[in-house]
Amino acid sequence: MLHVTIIGMGLIGTSLGMALRSADEKDAPLGKILLTGYDKNPRAVTDARGRLAIDREARTLKEALHEAQLVIVAVPVQAVRQVFEEIGPLLPNGAVVTDVASTKAQVVAWARELLPRTVQFIGGHPMAGREKSGPQAAERTLFERAIYCATPTSETGERAMQVLEALVEQIGAKLYYIDAAEHDAYVAGVSHLPFVLSAVLVDAVSRSAGWKEMQPLASTGFRDISRLASGDVEMHRDICLTNHEALVRWIDEATSSLMNLREAIETQDSQALTQFFEQAQAGREEWLQSKPNMRPGEEFFENFGAGQAADRPSLFGRWGKPKQK
Amino acid sequence: MLHVTIIGMGLIGTSLGMALRSADEKDAPLGKILLTGYDKNPRAVTDARGRLAIDREARTLKEALHEAQLVIVAVPVQAVRQVFEEIGPLLPNGAVVTDVASTKAQVVAWARELLPRTVQFIGGHPMAGREKSGPQAAERTLFERAIYCATPTSETGERAMQVLEALVEQIGAKLYYIDAAEHDAYVAGVSHLPFVLSAVLVDAVSRSAGWKEMQPLASTGFRDISRLASGDVEMHRDICLTNHEALVRWIDEATSSLMNLREAIETQDSQALTQFFEQAQAGREEWLQSKPNMRPGEEFFENFGAGQAADRPSLFGRWGKPKQK
Repeated sequence: MLHVTIIGMGLIGTSLGMALRSADEKDAPLGKILLTGYDKNPRAVTDARGRLAIDREARTLKEALHEAQLVIVAVPVQAVRQVFEEIGPLLPNGAVVTDVASTKAQVVAWARELLPRTVQFIGGHPMAGREKSGPQAAERTLFERAIYCATPTSETGERAMQVLEALVEQIGAKLYYIDAAEHDAYVAGVSHLPFVLSAVLVDAVSRSAGWKEMQPLASTGFRDISRLASGDVEMHRDICLTNHEALVRWIDEATSSLMNLREAIETQDSQALTQFFEQAQAGREEWLQSKPNMRPGEEFFENFGAGQAADRPSLFGRWGKPKQK
Repeated sequence: MLHVTIIGMGLIGTSLGMALRSADEKDAPLGKILLTGYDKNPRAVTDARGRLAIDREARTLKEALHEAQLVIVAVPVQAVRQVFEEIGPLLPNGAVVTDVASTKAQVVAWARELLPRTVQFIGGHPMAGREKSGPQAAERTLFERAIYCATPTSETGERAMQVLEALVEQIGAKLYYIDAAEHDAYVAGVSHLPFVLSAVLVDAVSRSAGWKEMQPLASTGFRDISRLASGDVEMHRDICLTNHEALVRWIDEATSSLMNLREAIETQDSQALTQFFEQAQAGREEWLQSKPNMRPGEEFFENFGAGQAADRPSLFGRWGKPKQK
């Protein structure tokens, strides 16, 4: 019986609980688990219990961490530091601690600073989400087939990696080992820049004098490109604060691209416009085509030397252990 | 029996044919119709026939327009001018001509210049689409509950409006009368700016040295915000060319908004970030809330004086005739 504690019963924490508990105990990679949930807002814990995301509600952090063997910190990234401070003295020896925050370098630094040497930490980031937040928005299947980043450091122990691997397998996600700084730079481009552009679109049109009249003309294109603007304000703010350097670099890239396109539009340069949209179309097609190849242990390893053992997860930028076929 | 001719068997033309033909003849607002399809690419016409979008394939424009009473020009906006030139001498007296192009002021000007006085023209623009193109991507239900803009001018006759109203009703869309210039300014914000930002996102990240490694990290957020970048290159180019002034104004608005957000990120201004994302969230929520109210003749008329007859569709910016309850 593994004692698992989830701190933070928001969208991710609650969805994780639902996904973990719905696994068949006999085949579950983590084995039999006892899941305890905690949130500074007791209402969220009750809601999570009501959604069958946890076995037990904890009213204090001390209660939540008693006998805990795997602790998942599922709070917004700016709150992680304080949670680490508070749980530091309460963590049982040998516990594995992980988090789910959207940026990782800062979290890894906080873990090094604030968590005791008697526990093992490994950073995590499931690449899944919804524009809604809170336990009521949670979904048992949120992580199915999603990429789950893990950012071990040279200090990360074998057990932490094994436990996280089992957790990721149990919720149906795919493990992806990556360096924390690289993670932050990449997700700033494919995850944070998208919500920035989405919010900018809504900001630009909703400040317009014609906004009321424009609303009925907005169709599926607007709906999709503006979707992330409905996302959690606190999460967006915290990501901007903790990943500001990488994000500003991407904003500058996007601005430069936008200026190129603006120039082509203003000068009515048909050829430049065709080229721009063709490249964008091809870029997205490349991404779409890449998706079916994302099987653990396959293809990705071809980029590495054959001398490197494929089942060692300690090399950054690699898929997790190949599954038995 | 109404002879309807669709010129252009792309996504929109073929979907229109499918939607029109699937209506129950007895209750169909257009009554019994005979649908002829034409495309400069004969293969597209055959494909459209195979998808039950048309009754008859025409091999020449002359054949297509013989006895035509309603002509729907469903070609990319830049091709509209040439089609108008070619059909001008072939159009039967009294025919109603409409189009489906994404920008309207230019099309209205071409119609005035190139179509004979013996026909009636009314500009149209269904606010629906897909990122795929061609007759194979067509969908019978593409226009259901979608806004269908109509841009009559002072020269537009009553019959053209009646026929377009019936067409829009038959495909399950909602008619929205609007001035052509206003249409172009508004759709530049809610329809063209979105695909510009979508293409810019893909352009920025796919030119990066880390693009290969970033691809597996891209998740549902990237998928949605980049969706329009997969759209038809020719259509995007043509929209940029025919609506460049309005679009450049919106790009400048978006750039200004992006620069504000960049400043808040770089200076780590937590309060400014919260405010920005809160406003964007609220703006999108306002749009989402406005959707259920979009019933013809309701609410929208409240913004106009009671002295104006609600069933006259000739005032710009108004919904079509209120339905019988």
